[in-house]
Amino acid sequence: MALEVVSTNKSFDGTLTKYKFKSTALGGLDAKFNLFIPANAANGKVPLLVYLAGLECTEDTGAQKGAFIGPAAKEGIALLFPDTSPRGAGIEGEDDDWQFGTGAGFYLNATNPKWSKHYNMLTHVTLEIPQIIEAAGLPIDFTRQSIFGHSMGGHGALTLYLTSLLNGSKQYRSVSAFSPISNPSKCPWGETAFKGYLAGGIAEGQDLYDATELIKKLVKTPAHVLIDYGTGDKFYQNGQLLPENFLKAARDQGYDEVQVRVRDQEGYDHGYYFISTFGADHVHFHANFLKA
Amino acid sequence: MALEVVSTNKSFDGTLTKYKFKSTALGGLDAKFNLFIPANAANGKVPLLVYLAGLECTEDTGAQKGAFIGPAAKEGIALLFPDTSPRGAGIEGEDDDWQFGTGAGFYLNATNPKWSKHYNMLTHVTLEIPQIIEAAGLPIDFTRQSIFGHSMGGHGALTLYLTSLLNGSKQYRSVSAFSPISNPSKCPWGETAFKGYLAGGIAEGQDLYDATELIKKLVKTPAHVLIDYGTGDKFYQNGQLLPENFLKAARDQGYDEVQVRVRDQEGYDHGYYFISTFGADHVHFHANFLKA
Repeated sequence: MALEVVSTNKSFDGTLTKYKFKSTALGGLDAKFNLFIPANAANGKVPLLVYLAGLECTEDTGAQKGAFIGPAAKEGIALLFPDTSPRGAGIEGEDDDWQFGTGAGFYLNATNPKWSKHYNMLTHVTLEIPQIIEAAGLPIDFTRQSIFGHSMGGHGALTLYLTSLLNGSKQYRSVSAFSPISNPSKCPWGETAFKGYLAGGIAEGQDLYDATELIKKLVKTPAHVLIDYGTGDKFYQNGQLLPENFLKAARDQGYDEVQVRVRDQEGYDHGYYFISTFGADHVHFHANFLKA
Repeated sequence: MALEVVSTNKSFDGTLTKYKFKSTALGGLDAKFNLFIPANAANGKVPLLVYLAGLECTEDTGAQKGAFIGPAAKEGIALLFPDTSPRGAGIEGEDDDWQFGTGAGFYLNATNPKWSKHYNMLTHVTLEIPQIIEAAGLPIDFTRQSIFGHSMGGHGALTLYLTSLLNGSKQYRSVSAFSPISNPSKCPWGETAFKGYLAGGIAEGQDLYDATELIKKLVKTPAHVLIDYGTGDKFYQNGQLLPENFLKAARDQGYDEVQVRVRDQEGYDHGYYFISTFGADHVHFHANFLKA
């Protein structure tokens, strides 16, 4: 697994580098990611904040439109932007629907044989990219990671975080999300993904990859969760996001609003003009834990 | 000329609206622009900062990638993002070259008959859009305007500003630019544009639309100019930008570094990861004059 530099751009006194490598997790396909390393990494390893983008997005979307790099540079935190799915697996139907297949990997490991060779974004994000970054000697301190994301990527961030609490790995110190798909086994986007990628369908998804179900399994485990969604978000209005279900489950488990904070932002929609508004806020939220 | 709303997005507590209208200046074609109005406009008209984007860009590029909206919202300043050329004029050869035609209007008024019906971005930006915004009753104070831009748009910002000083209209209080084409009659991009759009070719361009030539004509006129370019910018290295020519002309005219400041930013390139790094800085520069 050699890491190849695709491009580098200086930004906010640090460096954003796009890398490419042959991904074992994604069945040998080329995978790309962007990594922002702040200037202070010259003085020692820095913590990492992982950003998972939404449907139809790529490793560039958050880097270009999120307004995260300035705040991260100021806090001295690195940013990792993975892609949203494998690219070019050549599976029949892969490119037919913007909500499934290419650009829509849902940050899970597929168990349906049709998809299981390539669609393993969970392993790709949580294990493979950290390993290849570490092997390349880049100045990232992987004992200090947090994760955030948008929409499908908000679903990814929440489920990867909650799973890391449940399995005891505590890979991520905190999680935040913009407009996350919060209860995917109860919404069309999630149902389509689970039925397609998972041999066990919606039941398997509900068990392994549904934030609202996962938080019900946590018993007296400290958690650090921030969620923002817009009341003007059409996908929220149409029941794709269901943050209220996640919030109710969290409160039922005894999490107060210091540990699990869900904010409804009046009049904002689903896009990056909303995300960038609260981007600095989310980076600062994670900095509290990453620099503790 | 009715103004039609294409989309609206709440951002940083204000509203970014994309508008469409039939543009007389552009020969009757549909033209789009984005306008960000900050929340404080509810209390009265706000000043306007106009952003001109570069080659191949649209009215969306600066709005999405520039990181200008946050600082402008904080300062209580509106932002106008025009397009970079007419769209769909149907002129032969219009779409053959990314450096000329569609996406490359160069913020001038064409005099070559082949282009002169449609390619009048100068009138479009300086007169037509302000008039239609004013006629729509939007809360912009056009007595307080400044202008900035990137690359071809930096050329546009500098030439529109300097022209407004030379003709006494003082339409803009200040100008700034990222990586501007600063001496277009001496670089390939400018030569191509002037030869194509102007009946008088490079000589006409040099006279009317070359920032380095225009500043030589200013006699003891106070000016407020800020320019940033990256030393790692390939277009700078290849002689497309020539900020050193503009700087020399400014100093020869007696402008000191308070009035005309040109900064070489070590290691930065030509793109929006560079621009966004200094975006807030430019907005604050203009706020000094817009809110004076």
